[in-house]
Amino acid sequence: MNGAESLVATLVGQGVDICFANPGTSEMHFLAALENPGMRSVLCLFEGVATGAADGWYRMKDKPAATLLHLGPGLANGLANIHNAKRASSGMVNIVGEHSAAHLKYDPPLTSDIEGLARPLSHWVRRAGSADAIAWDAAQAVAAASAHPGQVATLILPGDTSWQQAGTPVLPTPAAPTRKAPDAARIEHVARVLRSGEPTLIILANKATRGAALARAGRVAAATGARLGSQFFTARIERGAGRVPIERIPYAVAQAIAFLKGFRHIVTVETREPVAFFSYPDKPSLLKAEGTLVHPLVEADEDSELAFDMLLEALGATNARPALQPRIETPVPTGALNPASVARALAAALPEHCILVDESLTTGRESMGLTMGALPHDLINNMGGSIGYATPVATGAALACPDRRVFCMVGDGSAMYTIQSLWTQAREDLDVTTIIFANNSYAILKAEYANMGAGVPGARALSMIDIDRPRIDWQAMAKSMGVPAVAVDTAEGFHRAMVDSTREPGPRLIEVRL
Amino acid sequence: MNGAESLVATLVGQGVDICFANPGTSEMHFLAALENPGMRSVLCLFEGVATGAADGWYRMKDKPAATLLHLGPGLANGLANIHNAKRASSGMVNIVGEHSAAHLKYDPPLTSDIEGLARPLSHWVRRAGSADAIAWDAAQAVAAASAHPGQVATLILPGDTSWQQAGTPVLPTPAAPTRKAPDAARIEHVARVLRSGEPTLIILANKATRGAALARAGRVAAATGARLGSQFFTARIERGAGRVPIERIPYAVAQAIAFLKGFRHIVTVETREPVAFFSYPDKPSLLKAEGTLVHPLVEADEDSELAFDMLLEALGATNARPALQPRIETPVPTGALNPASVARALAAALPEHCILVDESLTTGRESMGLTMGALPHDLINNMGGSIGYATPVATGAALACPDRRVFCMVGDGSAMYTIQSLWTQAREDLDVTTIIFANNSYAILKAEYANMGAGVPGARALSMIDIDRPRIDWQAMAKSMGVPAVAVDTAEGFHRAMVDSTREPGPRLIEVRL
Repeated sequence: MNGAESLVATLVGQGVDICFANPGTSEMHFLAALENPGMRSVLCLFEGVATGAADGWYRMKDKPAATLLHLGPGLANGLANIHNAKRASSGMVNIVGEHSAAHLKYDPPLTSDIEGLARPLSHWVRRAGSADAIAWDAAQAVAAASAHPGQVATLILPGDTSWQQAGTPVLPTPAAPTRKAPDAARIEHVARVLRSGEPTLIILANKATRGAALARAGRVAAATGARLGSQFFTARIERGAGRVPIERIPYAVAQAIAFLKGFRHIVTVETREPVAFFSYPDKPSLLKAEGTLVHPLVEADEDSELAFDMLLEALGATNARPALQPRIETPVPTGALNPASVARALAAALPEHCILVDESLTTGRESMGLTMGALPHDLINNMGGSIGYATPVATGAALACPDRRVFCMVGDGSAMYTIQSLWTQAREDLDVTTIIFANNSYAILKAEYANMGAGVPGARALSMIDIDRPRIDWQAMAKSMGVPAVAVDTAEGFHRAMVDSTREPGPRLIEVRL
Repeated sequence: MNGAESLVATLVGQGVDICFANPGTSEMHFLAALENPGMRSVLCLFEGVATGAADGWYRMKDKPAATLLHLGPGLANGLANIHNAKRASSGMVNIVGEHSAAHLKYDPPLTSDIEGLARPLSHWVRRAGSADAIAWDAAQAVAAASAHPGQVATLILPGDTSWQQAGTPVLPTPAAPTRKAPDAARIEHVARVLRSGEPTLIILANKATRGAALARAGRVAAATGARLGSQFFTARIERGAGRVPIERIPYAVAQAIAFLKGFRHIVTVETREPVAFFSYPDKPSLLKAEGTLVHPLVEADEDSELAFDMLLEALGATNARPALQPRIETPVPTGALNPASVARALAAALPEHCILVDESLTTGRESMGLTMGALPHDLINNMGGSIGYATPVATGAALACPDRRVFCMVGDGSAMYTIQSLWTQAREDLDVTTIIFANNSYAILKAEYANMGAGVPGARALSMIDIDRPRIDWQAMAKSMGVPAVAVDTAEGFHRAMVDSTREPGPRLIEVRL
């Protein structure tokens, strides 16, 4: 067994059973080791697709995938979606190929400071020093990636470490990641706040927006009158009919301030108090009202489910029943496409247990509330703000959940960053419906230009915001990578295209002409 | 005048008059400042296109372009082509947007360690501290980028620095970058080596492969019998009929060793001794024969032209006449497409003074010698080895030289990394002929698999190397971004398509079906 085989065997043994790969010459032994039947390999034509897919995999599986990247520049191409994954607390194990130690001193062309590139966006970075020890390194990388919250682990793999002989790896038994119990005094304090009856918003994030933690949060809300909210962007929310509903803090600063104004208390669960996404010359960074008090209930590394159990106990409300979102039958909208009709078409079309990945920016930003009463589904958002996250994340989510269709809502500008995802979706025959909102501009920037107080955009500035020259032909783009596509320009056409996309397996693309 | 306006005015004043931009919210004031009529703005749909285009611009202009990138992740998306530019000694000024200082402390989603991301691949990194001082920062960035050899300068621009008022910038007069004179003793030593009559290879690089320096190198070769060579990859070579010919050291280790075996001396000019691109288990890193002596003549920061003048003086050969490459009329090849017929078709088709950007890997790698007698042209290669460089570099080169057609030869796998370049080429109506060598595989990796001694690839490994499922439809891909395309499957068809592409302005794509 060589080092690469030892590495792959260890990854598999520790529970990492998929690798999103974009290999190069220095990774040939790793490629050979991927013959290990316990590891699934998925080829990506650009590294940002690989790292984004690993993020999507984690969000649906709560366990890390591996990526295979080609030296420093290959890692660099994956960094933007590593940033997004890091902000979403998605664990992943990045294997980065490297020249052999003996070769590095000659500074060949592909040499770069891989540790330097990895550190700003990784929690854990190591250079594998020998074939013998790589099993140990890999087990530690998986443990770091599997922690709560998930971490980005980057393991640098020199060629000689890959090809030299290693003993059979002695694998530690993977330990289930532990979540810290929250501090009892903090629970008592929050219970007192909630008993005061003063207007309170409980902001849920990360693992608290789904499953048992969300159900318990619903009981706390029912027992105390507190409202449940989320940041505008959340890693994954279980929502729709029958789920505990969560209100979304708006994106725009003025609207967020208006939403938060009435709360005397903000209780945070696996997150912190709301902060504006960007800074503007005349707008505040912190969004809460003056006099609003912030009370952390659950820190990022703590256990929300346990915290809510303790809180229900402290409130004497263990029998409270949460208010659940009723099903709202949305009639199929007709006529012009606009944010509201788009959202209504979604609400009418989304099948039960689908996954909705949202990078629709201007189109979907303020209207997603209209899908609250849709059939139960999962909503995934971009936590890091680097665009080009949606199509890769949808790819990884579809691989993680082969029995659930993924709807990927993405603006045309955003889609172009990592459009190579379509190819992997076609190759793996993934049930992804990509919805391109084609307004032929970076529409968000038009609004932000004014928000920034930069005046009225001149002709040159406008030409940097409009992407209508040439118009991207989305039908041709989809065809080029083997994905069937349709274009729609009415709300009913959009609804029909979504429903049609669910009738057969495999990827589809819908161009929504705005 | 605000900070952004001061910055743009300074860039223009210091000679930087083009900006390859992919803006975001935090760069709105910079966008507004781009109304400055002295600055041309070119929109790119992905940051790797912007940084690669800046590289192409520098290679043809010998002066830096600016890029505009959106915070840390935007910079990260541009890093792979910054790596390639750095290895090619291409200067560039990267302007990276950033949150305002007051906002950063709240760690909003797009926050990252921008300096940390920039440093591994920049020579010069600074965070602009105030609107008043930004003119000074920008002038220093341009000076660093304009040095010889060119440098990567990265200036981080916080929002508040951009929008606050600045005084009118006091601009230093830009100084022409200086090149150090080479050491006289080194010249004398190399003259003695050359006078010995022992077999000598002079390896030329960077500025020494063109213009007056190349002409003088030809006179040295004529006077002494030394041969002129280049590394396999060179930033830019002036070649073809009437130019001083340079022999190319082969890529493959065994062939490179065979080529270098007969030389007793290697003289290096703006480069170092030949090193293998990758490390292999049983192959050496250094390629020269045992007993070959290496003599540096011109270091990277020195003046090759002056060095050759001094050397000709020392040799008493100031009147030597170089042997120039004769024109070789290549008949139009017919029949099957293979590396040799592809190269002959190129030799027959290339118009005078065109620019050839080569990322053809397996297809063009060993056959470019057949184009030595083509009409005079410039050849640009990838110095950093991170694939996805060619289509952006071709974009920048076409903007730099609007009167010269650019032929961009690129493998299908490589083209997919930064395919968004086609859109900018269509938008700017650039005279770029993109030639896609469609072999539906990462063909280079098939060879490297064996070279690495990784055995015979199994089914899973092979599936990570072949990209034929699905086949990329290059006609549709080109159409999606507004570039007219044809497909060819014969040598004569390829030749005709190249000639046809030169008849009208604007971009074209030729899919070469291998």
